[in-house]
Amino acid sequence: MKTKLFLLLFFVLTYLGISQTPGYDLWMNYKQIDNEKLNKSYQKATTSLAVLGKSETIQAIKNELQLALPQLLEKQPEIKSVVEERSSLIIATLDALPSNIKKQFSAAVDNLGDEGFIIKSIKIEKNTKLVVTAHTEIGLLYGTFRVLALMQQLEELTNLNLVDSPKIDIRMLNHWDNLDRTVERGYAGFSLWNWQKLPEYIDQRYVDYARANASIGINAVSLTNVNANALILTPMYLEKVKALAKTFRPYGIKVYLTARFSAPIEIGGLETADPLDQKVIDWWQAKADEIYSLIPNFGGFLVKANSEGQPGPQNYDRNHVDGANMMAKALAPHNGNVIWRAFVYSEHDADDRAKQAYSEFVPYDGKFLPNVLVQVKNGAIDFQPREPFHPMFGAMPKTHIMMEFQITKEYLGFSTHLVYLPKLYEEVLEADTYQEGKGSTVAKVLDGSLQGQQITGMAGVANIGNDLNWTGHPFGQADWYGFGRLAWDPYLDSEKIADEWLRMTFSNDEKFIAPIKEMMVTSREAVVNYMNPLGLHHIFDTGHHYGPGPWVSELSRPEWNPVYYHQADENGIGFDRTPSGSNATAQYAQPVAEMFNDPKTCPEEYLLWFHHLPWDYQLKNGETLWNGLAKKYQKGVNQVAKMQETWNQMKPYVSAEQHKEVNMLLTIQYKEAKWWRDACLLYFQTFSKQELPVGVEKPEHDLEYYKSLKFPFAPGIRPRWN
Amino acid sequence: MKTKLFLLLFFVLTYLGISQTPGYDLWMNYKQIDNEKLNKSYQKATTSLAVLGKSETIQAIKNELQLALPQLLEKQPEIKSVVEERSSLIIATLDALPSNIKKQFSAAVDNLGDEGFIIKSIKIEKNTKLVVTAHTEIGLLYGTFRVLALMQQLEELTNLNLVDSPKIDIRMLNHWDNLDRTVERGYAGFSLWNWQKLPEYIDQRYVDYARANASIGINAVSLTNVNANALILTPMYLEKVKALAKTFRPYGIKVYLTARFSAPIEIGGLETADPLDQKVIDWWQAKADEIYSLIPNFGGFLVKANSEGQPGPQNYDRNHVDGANMMAKALAPHNGNVIWRAFVYSEHDADDRAKQAYSEFVPYDGKFLPNVLVQVKNGAIDFQPREPFHPMFGAMPKTHIMMEFQITKEYLGFSTHLVYLPKLYEEVLEADTYQEGKGSTVAKVLDGSLQGQQITGMAGVANIGNDLNWTGHPFGQADWYGFGRLAWDPYLDSEKIADEWLRMTFSNDEKFIAPIKEMMVTSREAVVNYMNPLGLHHIFDTGHHYGPGPWVSELSRPEWNPVYYHQADENGIGFDRTPSGSNATAQYAQPVAEMFNDPKTCPEEYLLWFHHLPWDYQLKNGETLWNGLAKKYQKGVNQVAKMQETWNQMKPYVSAEQHKEVNMLLTIQYKEAKWWRDACLLYFQTFSKQELPVGVEKPEHDLEYYKSLKFPFAPGIRPRWN
Repeated sequence: MKTKLFLLLFFVLTYLGISQTPGYDLWMNYKQIDNEKLNKSYQKATTSLAVLGKSETIQAIKNELQLALPQLLEKQPEIKSVVEERSSLIIATLDALPSNIKKQFSAAVDNLGDEGFIIKSIKIEKNTKLVVTAHTEIGLLYGTFRVLALMQQLEELTNLNLVDSPKIDIRMLNHWDNLDRTVERGYAGFSLWNWQKLPEYIDQRYVDYARANASIGINAVSLTNVNANALILTPMYLEKVKALAKTFRPYGIKVYLTARFSAPIEIGGLETADPLDQKVIDWWQAKADEIYSLIPNFGGFLVKANSEGQPGPQNYDRNHVDGANMMAKALAPHNGNVIWRAFVYSEHDADDRAKQAYSEFVPYDGKFLPNVLVQVKNGAIDFQPREPFHPMFGAMPKTHIMMEFQITKEYLGFSTHLVYLPKLYEEVLEADTYQEGKGSTVAKVLDGSLQGQQITGMAGVANIGNDLNWTGHPFGQADWYGFGRLAWDPYLDSEKIADEWLRMTFSNDEKFIAPIKEMMVTSREAVVNYMNPLGLHHIFDTGHHYGPGPWVSELSRPEWNPVYYHQADENGIGFDRTPSGSNATAQYAQPVAEMFNDPKTCPEEYLLWFHHLPWDYQLKNGETLWNGLAKKYQKGVNQVAKMQETWNQMKPYVSAEQHKEVNMLLTIQYKEAKWWRDACLLYFQTFSKQELPVGVEKPEHDLEYYKSLKFPFAPGIRPRWN
Repeated sequence: MKTKLFLLLFFVLTYLGISQTPGYDLWMNYKQIDNEKLNKSYQKATTSLAVLGKSETIQAIKNELQLALPQLLEKQPEIKSVVEERSSLIIATLDALPSNIKKQFSAAVDNLGDEGFIIKSIKIEKNTKLVVTAHTEIGLLYGTFRVLALMQQLEELTNLNLVDSPKIDIRMLNHWDNLDRTVERGYAGFSLWNWQKLPEYIDQRYVDYARANASIGINAVSLTNVNANALILTPMYLEKVKALAKTFRPYGIKVYLTARFSAPIEIGGLETADPLDQKVIDWWQAKADEIYSLIPNFGGFLVKANSEGQPGPQNYDRNHVDGANMMAKALAPHNGNVIWRAFVYSEHDADDRAKQAYSEFVPYDGKFLPNVLVQVKNGAIDFQPREPFHPMFGAMPKTHIMMEFQITKEYLGFSTHLVYLPKLYEEVLEADTYQEGKGSTVAKVLDGSLQGQQITGMAGVANIGNDLNWTGHPFGQADWYGFGRLAWDPYLDSEKIADEWLRMTFSNDEKFIAPIKEMMVTSREAVVNYMNPLGLHHIFDTGHHYGPGPWVSELSRPEWNPVYYHQADENGIGFDRTPSGSNATAQYAQPVAEMFNDPKTCPEEYLLWFHHLPWDYQLKNGETLWNGLAKKYQKGVNQVAKMQETWNQMKPYVSAEQHKEVNMLLTIQYKEAKWWRDACLLYFQTFSKQELPVGVEKPEHDLEYYKSLKFPFAPGIRPRWN
């Protein structure tokens, strides 16, 4: 009978892995602990649980334990609301702990903050107990998820003394979701938010989304596209937002909304949206009051103003400070924030697009109200496979500067390319701005440790949609996971994050972990090689950004055209941003500017970002620029082939369906890597007029073929009302 | 240990029912057979399986058994490819059966057709064996699904002699899916077809979709919106269609595409799409050849022409026969079909819209080529909660007339209202056209038994999207299921179908089945009552058809306005379609026309469809028309309240999450039923100038409030390029 039941269980679980909905559970799939010794140890640690408190957050903690432990340990947990002698795992705030336990927590608690937690093994008489404690229940929730993660990763739970707290305050997902459920730059289906069925219908998925975020410490979400629609601020929609906010609240997640600057006109019936007009000021104040009466823990507004056609204060001859501070005043009485995006470049400014955000914003340093954060993309152009860090980081010491990463792969192959983004994030976070001398990394700017900012934040543009597996590509889940982990602690190692994610998602088997971790951490360099090597950027096809379009030149604004960015001609290729060119390098601290200015000291991965160089310019390895460029493209293709090879050997470690799924996606990635190589090299060859070097495969088609490809229904394009 | 494992299994399964993806498995969730006696009997019947053959369809049969039996019976099946003495269940075509078994199948096999099957218990020496046989492997697949369904419904598998075959040839889903994955009139998320990732990436969902269809006998799908985009016929998209067709083929499903009549211009570079132009003829012939070279079992084209702005032969002064036959000739060499929709009403024809399809098409009877089917909506207007049957049924004896039902709830509350549609389908199928004398039901027209058509078909506009549970509302799955069952056999009883579906989806417990079946079969009358009682129709708000809009009057075409359909004024309400009015009744056979013409013999459910009657007209129950109308609206609301009550008592029989989900949806349905009642009665009251009768609740708001409601992002609207 035992065998039979085991068999049944095996079939049920196999079935789950096969034809149900693989990937839905993300890194929280709580696979059975098959290490016998650890299983026993975990059993012991969870013999009897005491979870103190009655709030919705405490209920969420209990729910998670009741969901996880039966799967991890084949055991339904016994959960009490009081600490007993036999309690083996105690989860309680410091205030709620019995005094004999509380006294075992020393000064460490002083630095915990509102969201930190302690996981500590203590001895009471002869019994070892594991205690999860924190100042707040949200801290307990985070601690609970950490305990479960430790089990999932087969870490010991004995002799623990783990103290952790987030280094950044606002750890946020930005959903670019439209009210019709299309998602701008979304490649994982459509928006999770089913506005039609809200507020009455609360999809279980909303809860699972909140669980996933809480498990990695994400505590804020902006629900709507930064290319905003004012209707979200009308009573009918606010009732729906309220329902989502209520669902997320137990998980410590605050809701933000994108505020269209012209909303006072569009839904308020005013004739102006001038931020200094008293009626406009009153309208926003009343709107803020209305929102907070519905959603007491509302986060605030995220605003894209005077950028790519969005309205803003400049429409009324006011500036960003006028606009942001007006909204900030409306939110301040409710402790709400304004997150004001710095992604601006003007059709009236002929200067290098890379310079414009800095030029426009840095003079305002110190002028924004305390509840304003300025959200800056990681690089000065737009989420390219590789960009040098944005010069604004460290350049506004009296401003709350917030990071904006992109988790969705607008310029990185949509959801069909396996590209492990935490590697990219890490590169940016570790970059040294030199703004306060050597060691002034972007991470230190962001967490306030360099310049003392009082509110800190990191946002990621979500890669989440209603695909069964949330992110389209199973490995896209690692980007969501990794973003959350780095927002919690921007000093974490991306390789360690990959390790965690692989163990929790797939397997703890080293024969799987080692090669796949290697595949992940090298995947980002692969995409740079086959799309944008040596500092090339923004040579994507127009509008949808799917595939190569280095030849595109006919768009109305010069800086929308790839030819603007690569500047290829018979003399060479690259954008001169040194003093002999746009002088964008002057926006960096002097040691950085000097390094970038000289092609000999400029890191080669940024070479053509900062320099226009002749085709026969000699690279560090002795190759000519043309040959080196061509070989980088080929290398990228080869790297994808290697990824395919690696994955092919992984059949023993994942289900047949998981294996097949990633295989199909790698087939697409390989096809498209070749497409990038062939299209770009054929096009640049019209300028270099040189043969492809040995080792670079001949293109499958001619240039005209690649130029003829059209994708009118590529996903993620901008909604048509913008 | 046994208890522990049972407990674990319980938790795993409970977990499945809770926070994974409830509803994804549809009616194929293969719950464990908890009736001990039957479980033993099924165990015995499946001791050893012999499944003969090697094709992909045979593999699909094996896969299904391997998926189902472990869950139903806690047992992994032993499947052999040869018949052995111990074989207890044999699945093989008649040709493949060993002769000693084959001889036990008598003349019954003559009428099986290509898709029928026999499930028969036979004795070989002293052993009872269950044999599933058919002429084709698709028949075996259908037979296998039937065996599993019998188990799911706790039917005996002993002494079986079940012979079944479909009564209709083409059993088809029409997806109104656009290439950007929006779905016209789709309320269950977005299109299943991920064109961006095709052809390489085959979503497991495509396979599960095919399994679900095959389980109920659906054998054809049109992938794309009838408001068509010609790009689907370009090589890039045809490669993607090929991949889907290949995935569906083992399940007996043929793919159709919608063909935009102007495609020769839009993608062919021609200057005309005139169906008599030789270049156009050649273009379609070449296109058909190209498609069949990729997809040998391609079904054919579904065409909406000269209807609601779609191009067609009339743009060139040709007629529907010219257009359909031209395409039919292109497809005939490959055995493909043209399905030509009869849903036409012209902006140049001031006649009653209800008459126009009949007027335009009936004169063409006998003129269409043999591989043309004319697809007619169930009623003459447009998928209303209730319509009299379309007068074209039975009126074109020399034409292949195909039914078009709508499964998606465009006019029935989207995916938030529980309305069991097979009840509606049944009403239409049982309607007597009298075209060949009494007993000339629509079902007999459709299956060819009345007038001898050689190809027969029934299409349903799909309610399927990428929502986790496929149909948005869990009970929407019953409409998909029921449509398939009725397409297989249009004489089935809708109540029996509900019974099957409930048992397979939820529970075999009679205490659940009886009340919920009752709730389902009465739900259709409820929606008629609270939306469109007494023959009212098309009083929906404009464009999106979400909620009431009886006041809408300003649209450019008269027949797009609700006021056109209800004709309410101070004298009364209703559309006079008798000889004193539009004389639409003359399109019906004489006994039917006579019945409809006289308000005393006209069934009251069609009263205002055919008659304009004074507000004090006396209904059969003695009430005035105004009071009767008001009470019908109230009754509809009360019926939804009753549904809520019924469901509230069902907690013991479904999971907490299933219970909560349906509860939330019923909350919306109740709210919207009241909205319909209040908005319509307030509006009609401006004409009747009478008080609401006793028992009808006072409206919550005034009429202006209801008129002010706007829903710019209601789902399912027409794509913006049409």
